[in-house]
Amino acid sequence: MLKLFYAPNACSLAPHIALNEAGADYEAILVDTKNGEQRTAPYLAINPKGRVPTLITERGRLTETPAILMFICQSFPEAGLAPLEDAFELARMNEFMSYLCSTVHVAHAHRMRGYRWVDDPAAIAAMQKKVPQTVAGCFELIERQFFVGPWVMGERYTVCDMYLFTLAQWLEADGVDPARFPKVADHRERMSRHPVVSRIVASELSA
Amino acid sequence: MLKLFYAPNACSLAPHIALNEAGADYEAILVDTKNGEQRTAPYLAINPKGRVPTLITERGRLTETPAILMFICQSFPEAGLAPLEDAFELARMNEFMSYLCSTVHVAHAHRMRGYRWVDDPAAIAAMQKKVPQTVAGCFELIERQFFVGPWVMGERYTVCDMYLFTLAQWLEADGVDPARFPKVADHRERMSRHPVVSRIVASELSA
Repeated sequence: MLKLFYAPNACSLAPHIALNEAGADYEAILVDTKNGEQRTAPYLAINPKGRVPTLITERGRLTETPAILMFICQSFPEAGLAPLEDAFELARMNEFMSYLCSTVHVAHAHRMRGYRWVDDPAAIAAMQKKVPQTVAGCFELIERQFFVGPWVMGERYTVCDMYLFTLAQWLEADGVDPARFPKVADHRERMSRHPVVSRIVASELSA
Repeated sequence: MLKLFYAPNACSLAPHIALNEAGADYEAILVDTKNGEQRTAPYLAINPKGRVPTLITERGRLTETPAILMFICQSFPEAGLAPLEDAFELARMNEFMSYLCSTVHVAHAHRMRGYRWVDDPAAIAAMQKKVPQTVAGCFELIERQFFVGPWVMGERYTVCDMYLFTLAQWLEADGVDPARFPKVADHRERMSRHPVVSRIVASELSA
């Protein structure tokens, strides 16, 4: 059985939703990131990166949200969570996920995880100051250029919707008003009312 | 015909090599990033992110190195540059590429592109100071945990080799001694002697 190591409202929410949408048989295991469990020896033996998500499969461990999401799509093709039959559409999906992990998530991380890139407390504070601007810039680009509608990729509901929804949850905390991005805000609202999504969000927050 | 927009020794080197390994018919178009061409209106019309690489295909534009690399693998399956037939091995490849784009490249970018995340000059200098440590930490993890050998993924030569080689080219400039990572250093040396790789590196540097 698949095992997903997750933390509430972290980017692991995207594969957590995807496993449910795929109808996968899996176990969700909470990692207590608030108390630093991700940096303990037992967890580092599971994922040497000290991050969530981690997916344990019968063939071994997988890390990195885009890789885990694509693996779920390919393992449960009948769920139709990716355009697996079309290399260009799949590339557009990979493009969107790469942007979320390498640019959007990174912009966000400068608010709470500035210590990854700098030691000086004044510099960490200076980083936090720019987060509303950098995160808003990312969502501006998504709104204008990459969100097709009604779903991220167009008519098809894909793992990109779950991943965008996850990162869009962080907007207010990052000091960005979601109303600036009407398509993204409407998408977030629709996703949050989706039965599977609302059930997983609630289960994570009550864990 | 495919068109690749690239800058010398940027991460666009990876798809530049991959297009050649795949035997693709393509045109390489230099973007003068040293003089800021990537932020001009004509280039932003091509790629609104203002970055390289951009791949123009007959069906439209693609950005983001991992997405472009996977598209090349799927468009030229006979080149065998990815384990397309095995979802788990493909996920391991996506995992490696996601780590390079979201963590390794980002650690490196704090040396020359700190202005993306902070405005204060003192904070930018503080960021630069930590780059040797963060970049070395990434390569330590690759060396110990993710590099299988003789190639990144094991016996099969894949686009991960081209992508790792590209980022490993930056080690000295980031203040990291490649000798600390014997497997990565040996891989870089073997890649640099590979006829296709050495030809593309030379063509980029003389462009």
